[in-house]
Amino acid sequence: MDATMMDAMSAEMKMPGMEMMDMAAMQACMDACSACEQACTVCSMQMMDCAPACMNCADMCNTMMRAMLRMQGMTPAAMMAMLDACIAMCQTCMDECMQHAENSDVCRMCAQACKSCMDACMAMRESMVKMAS
Amino acid sequence: MDATMMDAMSAEMKMPGMEMMDMAAMQACMDACSACEQACTVCSMQMMDCAPACMNCADMCNTMMRAMLRMQGMTPAAMMAMLDACIAMCQTCMDECMQHAENSDVCRMCAQACKSCMDACMAMRESMVKMAS
Amino acid sequence: MDATMMDAMSAEMKMPGMEMMDMAAMQACMDACSACEQACTVCSMQMMDCAPACMNCADMCNTMMRAMLRMQGMTPAAMMAMLDACIAMCQTCMDECMQHAENSDVCRMCAQACKSCMDACMAMRESMVKMAS
Amino acid sequence: MDATMMDAMSAEMKMPGMEMMDMAAMQACMDACSACEQACTVCSMQMMDCAPACMNCADMCNTMMRAMLRMQGMTPAAMMAMLDACIAMCQTCMDECMQHAENSDVCRMCAQACKSCMDACMAMRESMVKMAS
Repeated sequence: MDATMMDAMSAEMKMPGMEMMDMAAMQACMDACSACEQACTVCSMQMMDCAPACMNCADMCNTMMRAMLRMQGMTPAAMMAMLDACIAMCQTCMDECMQHAENSDVCRMCAQACKSCMDACMAMRESMVKMAS
Repeated sequence: MDATMMDAMSAEMKMPGMEMMDMAAMQACMDACSACEQACTVCSMQMMDCAPACMNCADMCNTMMRAMLRMQGMTPAAMMAMLDACIAMCQTCMDECMQHAENSDVCRMCAQACKSCMDACMAMRESMVKMAS
Repeated sequence: MDATMMDAMSAEMKMPGMEMMDMAAMQACMDACSACEQACTVCSMQMMDCAPACMNCADMCNTMMRAMLRMQGMTPAAMMAMLDACIAMCQTCMDECMQHAENSDVCRMCAQACKSCMDACMAMRESMVKMAS
Repeated sequence: MDATMMDAMSAEMKMPGMEMMDMAAMQACMDACSACEQACTVCSMQMMDCAPACMNCADMCNTMMRAMLRMQGMTPAAMMAMLDACIAMCQTCMDECMQHAENSDVCRMCAQACKSCMDACMAMRESMVKMAS
């Protein structure tokens, strides 16, 4: 999402039970989820081995990104659980794709996108823990 | 999914790291996720209060259902994390919709679909713990 | 969607510009889309040849089903265009899976689910043309 | 999708029956679909009037973007039909959101994202017609 839209839209993005959100962490997390969905979708089409993990990861990343665009319908507990699920799914997909990374540029890039998405979800999670305390 | 298709397809539904799956629990869980996605999608369109939670729940339920149809790309850890996320999201949506249940049949039915989905996800989770041990 | 929920929810399902909808045709179409999404999701995981068509078909069927659950946000023209897209995508997937139907029960069932979904979308389309005239 | 990934992945993006694709038009179209999905998702959460059209548009845009990432599973006819459906859905959402554009920055930006997506889908469609002839 571009910065102008993010500014205009951020007033809509308030989670009940969390007064403050780290909007920079959230923007980075949404962008990483979106990039990961795209990389996984392409990667799933080139090799049978990684297809199931890649599509599961693409769906989870899309669901995660949308949930960040709909903060009003989250609670801190649900958000944490979804971030954990997204991290676990990215880990699963990265582990699978790393096995083919030497032979396939697409797998290598998919694994990188999964790693970036995991990192961004972890940073988002930490920012929520910090702001809640 | 109807029973004939489930039988034919269940050979595809094997998770690495889990030799046995409780296929009856999985079928019940997929059906509950699908019903919950549909109920939440309708419910989200009738009242601003529940829209965000309902759409987050609909997306998570669809992602969960699809992951059960693509077991080859899961690990037990990722599956557990996704079931937890689905349970947390159903809880959030049910809590919201229960507040409007007296005034709205749609909200009441949505809350019931969320409750059924939570129960089915918990049963699925328990069956995995039992079979893993 | 079960019949009780459909009855309670059908008051929400009104498309601007279409006074009457054939609710039986719509229910049948939503059920066929949902079944097709599930069959395509499983089928996409077993063979590289059909994976891309199956996943495109699964996504289109889910989008189509959800649009029928959110009639308030459709126009007759957009609805017709989406039904045409769903029919075209089911045709593409069915053609692909029919090539493997002799060797794979999953492909054969996926092709059948695509055929049923096409038929249900065509019936829905015809009911709209009839009611509009 | 960033340019490096697009280069590496474009070898996977071949549609049967279309020897050449305008990759620049496709990249622009995918980016516009992704931006439109995000804008519509936020916009759907702020006002009951536009919620159904916005969510239908978000789902269609995501399905369209994914289909472009899975060209191997498309045919020219299915691709055209999906582009038409995406254009019709963006038009419906834009028309709705334009009615609230004076009072809501989010609606105005959503309408702009729908307009950009329509334009990019039309350009993609024209590039296909040109290359097919």
